[in-house]
Amino acid sequence: MTALQNDLILRTLRGENTERTPVWMMRQAGRYLPEYRATRAEAGSFLDLCKNAELACEVTLQPLERYPLDAAILFSDILTIPDAMGLGLYFTEGEGPKFERPVRTKADIDKLFVPDPNQELQYVMNAVSTIKNGLNGRVPLIGFSGSPWTLACYMVEGSGSKNFARIKRMMYDTPELMHQLLKIVTQSVISYLQAQIQAGAQIVMVFDTWGGNLTTKDYETFSLAYSRQISKALKEFNADVPRLLFTKGAGTWLETMANAGYDGLGVDWTTDLKVARELTKDSVVLQGNLDPTTLYANPETIRSKVRDVLADYGHGHKHIFNLGHGILPDINPEHVTAMIDEVHRSSPAYHQ
Amino acid sequence: MTALQNDLILRTLRGENTERTPVWMMRQAGRYLPEYRATRAEAGSFLDLCKNAELACEVTLQPLERYPLDAAILFSDILTIPDAMGLGLYFTEGEGPKFERPVRTKADIDKLFVPDPNQELQYVMNAVSTIKNGLNGRVPLIGFSGSPWTLACYMVEGSGSKNFARIKRMMYDTPELMHQLLKIVTQSVISYLQAQIQAGAQIVMVFDTWGGNLTTKDYETFSLAYSRQISKALKEFNADVPRLLFTKGAGTWLETMANAGYDGLGVDWTTDLKVARELTKDSVVLQGNLDPTTLYANPETIRSKVRDVLADYGHGHKHIFNLGHGILPDINPEHVTAMIDEVHRSSPAYHQ
Repeated sequence: MTALQNDLILRTLRGENTERTPVWMMRQAGRYLPEYRATRAEAGSFLDLCKNAELACEVTLQPLERYPLDAAILFSDILTIPDAMGLGLYFTEGEGPKFERPVRTKADIDKLFVPDPNQELQYVMNAVSTIKNGLNGRVPLIGFSGSPWTLACYMVEGSGSKNFARIKRMMYDTPELMHQLLKIVTQSVISYLQAQIQAGAQIVMVFDTWGGNLTTKDYETFSLAYSRQISKALKEFNADVPRLLFTKGAGTWLETMANAGYDGLGVDWTTDLKVARELTKDSVVLQGNLDPTTLYANPETIRSKVRDVLADYGHGHKHIFNLGHGILPDINPEHVTAMIDEVHRSSPAYHQ
Repeated sequence: MTALQNDLILRTLRGENTERTPVWMMRQAGRYLPEYRATRAEAGSFLDLCKNAELACEVTLQPLERYPLDAAILFSDILTIPDAMGLGLYFTEGEGPKFERPVRTKADIDKLFVPDPNQELQYVMNAVSTIKNGLNGRVPLIGFSGSPWTLACYMVEGSGSKNFARIKRMMYDTPELMHQLLKIVTQSVISYLQAQIQAGAQIVMVFDTWGGNLTTKDYETFSLAYSRQISKALKEFNADVPRLLFTKGAGTWLETMANAGYDGLGVDWTTDLKVARELTKDSVVLQGNLDPTTLYANPETIRSKVRDVLADYGHGHKHIFNLGHGILPDINPEHVTAMIDEVHRSSPAYHQ
């Protein structure tokens, strides 16, 4: 096993005192980079790129060549698990992901199975180990999965949705069916993330993109309860691999989320990090939360807004700098340079 | 002036002790009602319907014929002000509203003017007075406007938007330009709502649909600061007309919003009313917040979720029952009957 040259983010997640705030970006390997677009064109479709370990490794490393980032994140799709369950994932140009066979009835749910990470999801494990080798200890590798609630949203709706009418109807009218679906997805996420850890992931992150469409009670019952099971199972599997949870739109829920067994919580840009810190009482690391659209602004404005985020968090060591959501596809890559440089320049003062 | 037969919502907004929780629905006059769809077909386009005072009155009264609601709300569009400024509002089937001439530059902003409510917006005032006559004192009439930030979002983007790239760039890079735009929109909203009050509106509500896309600081600077100016000007104009403010995605911001001069705050379904009440310390009335998708469920589930919302708020008189956002167009109208009946049935216990 190669020793890490940069373990800043791991030390942060272990709660150690550090010299500066680590920084990475959600979707850092992505369309805003011309070199990504070139590799993507070479690969064919987005799914072809995900399923080609060499090319997935190439795009994962691209942002590290440009920027002094403190972590790499597995390049993959959020919907690999339902696809491996046989739902038939496909993409149409200009629209989001869709499933050929969405899950609508008890019969549909009864047919679901926990995919074997070393069979149906072998291509993801290949990508993890290829990237791990490619990184050669430069920075830690983050593995990830969608949360059970978020995966279930896509599985039931068959695509993204504005109002989530179908899954909400299932949840309200047949909660036992909703739980049956969430249970099998949760078992799948656990086995998937355990396999990513075995393949080399040094941090794992659960993305709850759609948890924010729920009421507080339903969020706790239908999303957080399952994210809690995941963190518990992963901790038992390997307590040395830190766990991150991100619910977009969490707001006041951060208080409850802090007790769900995760080492760190992602915070979107609409919740002030000062407020998030008060809610979580320094019991977890907070990750975020520059408004992704800030990167449309000029570099001087970007630097000033980075300083605002650092000041919002204030003095302390339990902060990972990130955007409050994924980087947007039409951002100028040079603007990212300004953002990261400002974190390097201004964050050490908060660590003294 | 006709005496009101049902002034429950006004008494609630004045902070008086009441016998039960008043109830109305955002977008209660709308596509989920077959009688609305019939009138709309008769009128022609959506804008034709807004501009025909008799038909606008007809659709405003339709939900009151079906349900024992405690308020009527002016049937109009949220973008009447920018349209009156000459931006050229139009609708394309299946998409949201758009502007022919969006506002992008200082020259565009310099050309804007405060529309005269009795000239360019005369059709809205005609609708208000026609509806007021049609109501004949049954329930109070709520007038409304979009918030300056929300109107500016549409004006700069030229339509709805996923990421609000253009207005965010204007806000971050040229805040003085952003403020110039927000100032003239604010003056327009004030004059528009004052005219609605003169024409007969007994409550006014400001809809800040897009405020939730901002950071906490930017929300206070670019949205709430202007909503505050509106409440101040309206209070000076007529202190007897209560003011409501709704920011979708407000979450923890409710605490600051409670000091913005509004009598009541709308709460979306993602914030628990118990938490909202703690944040606002009973200083304002809270309006909300059943998840609109609850109405897809069966009537027994709907009744149970209504009881949950009433219990979340708990004992007290400063609650107006509503959905946490507008009613969805494919809801079964009979499900609304169950919701309202349950408010009538279960809320008196919380008023003793």
